[in-house]
Amino acid sequence: MSYFDVASAAPLHPVARQALLASLDEGWADPARLYREGRRARMLLDAAREAAAEAVGCRADELVFTPSGTRALHDGIAGALAGRRRVGRHLVVSAVEHSAVLHSAAAHEAAGGAVTEVGVDRAGAVTAAAYAEALRADTALACLQSANHEVGTEQPVAEVAEVCRAAGVPLLVDAAQSLPWGAVDGDWSLLAASAHKWGGPAGVGLLVVRKGVRFAPRGPVDERESGRSPGFENIPAIVAAAAALRAVRAEAVAEAARLRELTERIRARVPDLVPDVEVVGDPVRRLPHLVTFSCLYVDGESLLHELDRAGFSVSSGSSCTSSTLTPSHVLTAMGVVSEGNVRVSLPPGTEDAEVERFLEVLPGAVAGVREKLGAPVGVTAAGTLDELTVDALGERCPLPVIELAKALPRVRVGGTVTVLSDDEVAAVDIPAWCWTQEQEYVGARERADGVAYEVRRLV
Amino acid sequence: MSYFDVASAAPLHPVARQALLASLDEGWADPARLYREGRRARMLLDAAREAAAEAVGCRADELVFTPSGTRALHDGIAGALAGRRRVGRHLVVSAVEHSAVLHSAAAHEAAGGAVTEVGVDRAGAVTAAAYAEALRADTALACLQSANHEVGTEQPVAEVAEVCRAAGVPLLVDAAQSLPWGAVDGDWSLLAASAHKWGGPAGVGLLVVRKGVRFAPRGPVDERESGRSPGFENIPAIVAAAAALRAVRAEAVAEAARLRELTERIRARVPDLVPDVEVVGDPVRRLPHLVTFSCLYVDGESLLHELDRAGFSVSSGSSCTSSTLTPSHVLTAMGVVSEGNVRVSLPPGTEDAEVERFLEVLPGAVAGVREKLGAPVGVTAAGTLDELTVDALGERCPLPVIELAKALPRVRVGGTVTVLSDDEVAAVDIPAWCWTQEQEYVGARERADGVAYEVRRLV
Repeated sequence: MSYFDVASAAPLHPVARQALLASLDEGWADPARLYREGRRARMLLDAAREAAAEAVGCRADELVFTPSGTRALHDGIAGALAGRRRVGRHLVVSAVEHSAVLHSAAAHEAAGGAVTEVGVDRAGAVTAAAYAEALRADTALACLQSANHEVGTEQPVAEVAEVCRAAGVPLLVDAAQSLPWGAVDGDWSLLAASAHKWGGPAGVGLLVVRKGVRFAPRGPVDERESGRSPGFENIPAIVAAAAALRAVRAEAVAEAARLRELTERIRARVPDLVPDVEVVGDPVRRLPHLVTFSCLYVDGESLLHELDRAGFSVSSGSSCTSSTLTPSHVLTAMGVVSEGNVRVSLPPGTEDAEVERFLEVLPGAVAGVREKLGAPVGVTAAGTLDELTVDALGERCPLPVIELAKALPRVRVGGTVTVLSDDEVAAVDIPAWCWTQEQEYVGARERADGVAYEVRRLV
Repeated sequence: MSYFDVASAAPLHPVARQALLASLDEGWADPARLYREGRRARMLLDAAREAAAEAVGCRADELVFTPSGTRALHDGIAGALAGRRRVGRHLVVSAVEHSAVLHSAAAHEAAGGAVTEVGVDRAGAVTAAAYAEALRADTALACLQSANHEVGTEQPVAEVAEVCRAAGVPLLVDAAQSLPWGAVDGDWSLLAASAHKWGGPAGVGLLVVRKGVRFAPRGPVDERESGRSPGFENIPAIVAAAAALRAVRAEAVAEAARLRELTERIRARVPDLVPDVEVVGDPVRRLPHLVTFSCLYVDGESLLHELDRAGFSVSSGSSCTSSTLTPSHVLTAMGVVSEGNVRVSLPPGTEDAEVERFLEVLPGAVAGVREKLGAPVGVTAAGTLDELTVDALGERCPLPVIELAKALPRVRVGGTVTVLSDDEVAAVDIPAWCWTQEQEYVGARERADGVAYEVRRLV
């Protein structure tokens, strides 16, 4: 049984467990009270704040604890936007931010604000130049993750921070995925993170606001956490979170090297072991423990079930594994295949043998799902037709792409296949499939009953 | 060492501790995931929700977990107001709500909404008639606590709910203080509570929104907790909270009877043991474990320190124990003395002997503080002056009242004393002192350097 989804949530670190147990007895009282139990709680809270600030690389009075990474982002973005309300109401985010950032952006837009989304390349990275272009005179805030949570690509935070600094715009960094591995470089203004990503307990996020950054907390506040995060402090969990961060940092360099070797092995071997696979994300500038690939002609949910049965817990950005039936916005923004998507994120301590067993199990799991779906087996026929229309209306991902892959060999090189589909995922996956298969994606036409996607056979 | 401040925070219940430990291993994963760790977490979360809903007396799908009672109130009030935005923007609250409710009301007012505060009697209770009068055609929401957190007075929730129901206005009940003792009666629409008040861990609140109540979550949301409370669920803490609620409920009837006897003893004996004390709050319709009294001529902070040294942890609504230097809004609204205020809230299991020892220690602690401050010793002189003006400018609570108490015996019955004070607490404490001492409070006049309070000697 191997849990390979630490990017969603990490099991509690043994050090965190110990710290939590100890502070359940010492840290339950109200730290605002004057009596001994309150003073003891306050001391624990102060010490945890010092430890967390040291790991982040900030002053203790710049850091507050929040109930989650999500709340840190929501409250951080809202507070930073309100603090610069006089400058303007323009917000810049990357297209591949965590949904908590994009939800904040959507709420800002709904309230009359303006939002610019900075696009990414096929590896999932932004450029500092694109941020420079997006900044305006009325830009109140820019947001950028330190590394992407779905594909592991590291972002050029220091360069983007420089560009923002030059324009006088604060940069908020979502450091949720990278903070366990090290402090975030560069002259950023705000930073958010989440303890359960580094082996701390759930219920603890952190929000850093550098001195001098204008910040006006939104909504009702109280006297807790410098007026930036209302509600009774969860001190035992905060103490455990700070202890875990310190512990994972102590092991970070060695563990990063070890896990990078393991994820590199997955990156290199999966395309050999499984036909029609696209490994996504930057191969070099990436998180050490995370690797993502998409298997054509496979639905993510079935593949996850197969892997779960085989003892591996992984996640997927495929549409069929989300309640909204839309594919991951990250994979969409990158323009890569979203069907049959698998994200592997290794927890510290993952053993070589587990990864080897995963590589043993994966090909059979993919083949099993493909067989059930009637996926093409990769034979390239010498087709003769000039054009062919395939009706995939009513069919869901990955079936429209499977129909396309089966039809294309029936037309001659230079001929076209038109796929009719009302599955919105096709808009992502058909162009991405063409890219991986080196075929030409001609374009899409809206119809009353769906969309017609046209593809020209090149090889 | 006796901790008598369970109304601020309760130590972790042994059952909660056990449940927390067990679910640290079983409930750390993302409950939205399909793999076994996720399914296990989801099962724990569902079971905890069922248990909490049963204790509240609602359907499981009406209840969401929040990061704290404060956030439950903030998010609940904001969502209920937004859900009835078309009806209007008028909010009704009592004057003695928890600060989280009043902060929400202030934020609503700052955003252009209207707020009516319903006053209370000297016992701290509202009336249904006062709520009926406050409701308007554009009232979107009314809020009322089930019992007051500072003086223990129970509110007529069922009657107020009936009045609201008749007017078509939803009632949100802050049940933080009473939920450990039983479900809230009456036909309320929304309810909020906080686990660390009943022996659950910090980091868990709950928000109930009855089916059919219009509710539109404010700000960015995600798919967690029915879209009503964003951020990764803190499942181990939620499981522990639900287990603790069930456990305290099992003992509630017996424990309430036992603690009521102990608090009754404090209510009855403190006025005999300590001169110039006002016991506040309703003597009958009250929480079983909570009693509050104010000691004239004492500053709360010094008294708390004395009691802490003697081994008793209690809290105070006095101005000098708050960072804002304003007295408790609850005591102010009730019109009772705020100086030398002491709130005793007994945790389950408090022993008879602890209360006896508290009653032994208290008189000496109060006398010590009074002596240091030069408080009057209660002698009533046969004064001869017609009037006397006392300059207490620059002096802080409780000194202006001490000056008044020393000056009044120097005027004849029917004569007046005028106290000049720039301490805003005097506006509360001088009238309240007159009430307790059966003297006539004539009124106050603004001056350039402060306020002149006039008092007529009656006895």
